[in-house]
Amino acid sequence: MKYLEFFENAVSSLKEEKRYRIFADLERQAGKFPRAIWRADNGLEREIMVWCSNDYLGMGQHPDVIAAMTETAEKMGSGAGGTRNISGTNRPLVELEMELADLHNKESALVFTSGFVSNEASISTIAKLLPDCLILSDQLNHASMIAGVKSSGVQKQLWRHNDVEHLEELLAAAGKERAKLIVFESVYSMDGDVAPIEKIIDLAEKYNAMTYIDEVHAVGMYGERGAGICEREGLMDRIDIIEGTLAKAFGTLGGYITGKAAVIDAIRSYAPGFIFTTAMPPAIAAAARTSVRHLKSSQVERDGQQRQAAYTKKALSDAGLPVMQSETHIVPLFVGDPDLCKKASDMLLDQHGIYIQPINYPTVPRGTERLRITPSPFHDDGLVNGLSAALLDVWDKLDLPYITPGTFYDLSAEAEQEVFEAAGG
Amino acid sequence: MKYLEFFENAVSSLKEEKRYRIFADLERQAGKFPRAIWRADNGLEREIMVWCSNDYLGMGQHPDVIAAMTETAEKMGSGAGGTRNISGTNRPLVELEMELADLHNKESALVFTSGFVSNEASISTIAKLLPDCLILSDQLNHASMIAGVKSSGVQKQLWRHNDVEHLEELLAAAGKERAKLIVFESVYSMDGDVAPIEKIIDLAEKYNAMTYIDEVHAVGMYGERGAGICEREGLMDRIDIIEGTLAKAFGTLGGYITGKAAVIDAIRSYAPGFIFTTAMPPAIAAAARTSVRHLKSSQVERDGQQRQAAYTKKALSDAGLPVMQSETHIVPLFVGDPDLCKKASDMLLDQHGIYIQPINYPTVPRGTERLRITPSPFHDDGLVNGLSAALLDVWDKLDLPYITPGTFYDLSAEAEQEVFEAAGG
Repeated sequence: MKYLEFFENAVSSLKEEKRYRIFADLERQAGKFPRAIWRADNGLEREIMVWCSNDYLGMGQHPDVIAAMTETAEKMGSGAGGTRNISGTNRPLVELEMELADLHNKESALVFTSGFVSNEASISTIAKLLPDCLILSDQLNHASMIAGVKSSGVQKQLWRHNDVEHLEELLAAAGKERAKLIVFESVYSMDGDVAPIEKIIDLAEKYNAMTYIDEVHAVGMYGERGAGICEREGLMDRIDIIEGTLAKAFGTLGGYITGKAAVIDAIRSYAPGFIFTTAMPPAIAAAARTSVRHLKSSQVERDGQQRQAAYTKKALSDAGLPVMQSETHIVPLFVGDPDLCKKASDMLLDQHGIYIQPINYPTVPRGTERLRITPSPFHDDGLVNGLSAALLDVWDKLDLPYITPGTFYDLSAEAEQEVFEAAGG
Repeated sequence: MKYLEFFENAVSSLKEEKRYRIFADLERQAGKFPRAIWRADNGLEREIMVWCSNDYLGMGQHPDVIAAMTETAEKMGSGAGGTRNISGTNRPLVELEMELADLHNKESALVFTSGFVSNEASISTIAKLLPDCLILSDQLNHASMIAGVKSSGVQKQLWRHNDVEHLEELLAAAGKERAKLIVFESVYSMDGDVAPIEKIIDLAEKYNAMTYIDEVHAVGMYGERGAGICEREGLMDRIDIIEGTLAKAFGTLGGYITGKAAVIDAIRSYAPGFIFTTAMPPAIAAAARTSVRHLKSSQVERDGQQRQAAYTKKALSDAGLPVMQSETHIVPLFVGDPDLCKKASDMLLDQHGIYIQPINYPTVPRGTERLRITPSPFHDDGLVNGLSAALLDVWDKLDLPYITPGTFYDLSAEAEQEVFEAAGG
C-alpha cells in the first residue's frame, strides 16, 4: 500500500481528461471592478478584466458595504470567537437574520458560513426529521443540494430538469400521505434558465409536499426588493423554505435559509453543520446586512445588470457566437470540449486580458463544457464590444463553431437525455 | 401529513430534555476583551465577562489583525466574488495558504471557509480516493470528523478514546496491506486532554496507516511557532495531514489542512465541499495571515494563556469545585445534568455578569454535562478570583456537589464505557 500513488494518480487522471483546474490568482481592486490584478505563474502581474465573477452587482466594492465591514471590525474585532451556541452569536448576525426574514417575508431566518453548508445542513435535517421522507430533486440541482440529499440518507428520486409532468408522475406515485420534499433552484446558474416555480408549487399543494427552493443566483437581482424570482412572481408565501446566499449579488460571504419559525428552529437545533461551526464574524454580517438593505430599495444595480446582460447576449449572438438560451443575467457560451474550453479561456487571458474561467465537468455535464459570462452593471458597452471582438479572435484561432447570427444555441433533446442519465436519473 | 408538527415536536422534545439551546446575543468590544455587551430577551443591554470564548488568545481584537482586515477590505472589497475556481482565488488567500504550509512545515495547504468543512471534505475525500479504505476513528472525535467519516461511505471502526492498545488491535486485525486512515485530535476540546500522538504515529508506521490529526484547539497555542501539539512534541513531519482552524486562537474564520502536495491537490480537485463554495474574502484571509505570522514569533500570548489557565484551575480546585482533569488551557467544570447545567449558566449570567455557556448533549455525552471555561491571557487574576466567588455562590444556591479541595474530578471508568457505547463503539 503506497498511499501517495493514489493521490498522484487521481490528479493525473484529471490532467489526462484536460479538466485539471488551475486557479487564477487575482487581486480585486475596490472601486475599479471588474478590473483586477492577475498574477501569472511566473510572478508577473497585470491588470485584467473579470467577466466571470458572481459578485453579480458589484456590491463587493460598494462603499457602504465596505464601510460597514471596516467599522464593525474596528469596533468588534475580526472574529466571532465561537460557535453560535458558545459565545459566537453576535448582534450584527442577529440583525442580519431579522433582515433576511423580512426580505423574504418569512417568520425566521438562519445564517450559515456558506451557501453549500446551508443547503447540505438544511435539506438533510428537514428530510431526517420527517418520517419516511421522499426527496424529489431536479436533476440539475447544485452539488450542495445533492450533498444534502445524500447526507439525509432518505430515498431520493430525480425528476428531469424543469419537467413538471415528470415531477407529477413521481408525486402521484408516492401518494398524498407520504412525506415528500421537493428541492429545486429558481435560476440554474450554468444555463441561466428559470424553474416553472408556480407549476411546481401547484403540484406540491395538490399532492401535499414541502417545497425547498435555492435562490442563490437570484437574490439581490430579481423582485422589487431583491428577494429573488419567487418575489418577482408573487410566490414567496407559497414556498416553504427559501435558501439564499450572501456571497454572490450581496457581495460578502455566507448562506441562509428562511421559512416558518418551527422549521428554522428545528434546523438550528439539529443540523451538525450549523451547530458545530464558528459563527460568521460580526464584520461580515454587518457588511452583508448593509448590502441586503441597500438592494431592498435601490433598483439601479438590478436595472444596470439586466441592461448589460441583454446587450452582451445580443452582441455575442449577432456575431454568430454560440450563446446558449438563457432567461437571466447569465450568458453561457457553448464549447462542448474540456480541452478547447481551457484553451479558449487561456487565450482570452493571455492575449486579451479577459478572464473567463472554463466551466468543465463536474460543474457541468461532460460534453456541455462552456464559458460562462456574467455581465454586471459595471461591464459597460465598450467592455462588451471588446469582449465580443476578443471572442471572435479566439473562436477563429481555435476554429470553434459559429451559429447563425442572431440566434441562440440550444442543447439537443438527445444531449439532455444523456445529461439526465449521467446524473443518475 | 401535517409537516409543521414534526418540526414543532422535534423542538419540543429538546425543551423537555432541557437541552434546547438559547443563543446569547453578544456584542464584542475590540480592545476590551473579555468584556462584551449582552442583550437580554427584554432588549436590555449590559456589560458581561465572556469566559467561554474560543478566541483563546484574544487575537480577534489584536490591532494588527484588525488593521489587516480593514485595509484589505478597503483595497479589495468585501467578498471574493466566486468559488476558488471561478474568480474567487485572491492574493491574500494564496499567501495565507503559503503561510500555513510553512507553519506546519508541509509542502502544501488548503483553506476552507470553516473547520467543519475542512474535516468533512478532507476526510471523506481521502478515504474515497483510497481503495477499500478503513477509517479508524477515536470515539470522541468532533462532529465534523464524524461527518467526514459518514460521508466517505467507507468502513469505520471506533477505538476507545486515546486507547492505543485498542487502536493496535484494530490495526493488526485490518492487516498491513489494507488502506487505513487513522483520524484523531490532538487536544479534545471538551475535556482538555491530549492524544498520545507519538504512540499513534508509531502504530501507524508499524501497520502502514495514514494519519490525520485535528489540531484546531492547539494551533496558535502550542509549539514554538504556534503550530500545535505536534510541533511541541517534534512530530509534525511524521503526521500525514494536519488540520487546523483560523477561527479560534487565530481569531478570524475558516479551516485548513496541510500535507504533501499530491494529497492536498487531490482534495482540492475532488472535494465537493471545497469546489462548490465561495472562496474566503481577501480581508479575512489577510487578517488570518497576520494573526498566524504574529503568533509564529510572539510567545507572550501563549505564556499568558498558560499562566491564567493554570491559575484558574488552581483557584477553582482549591475552592472544591469539580474541575475535570485537563492537560491544556481548557478548564471543564463537571455538572452532569442538563437542567442544572443550564440553571448554573443562567444564574452566572443574570446574577454575576459572567457568561459561560452550558455544554450539553450532543456536544458532550449525556450525563457529562459541564461548564467549559476558557481563560485567555486577558482573564487576569482579579477576574479569576471573581469567577471563583461567583461559582461558589451558584454551587451553593443550586446545591451542586463539591469535591476535596485541591483535587480534580475524574470521570469513572464505568462512565467512560457508557460514553463509548453511546458513541456506537
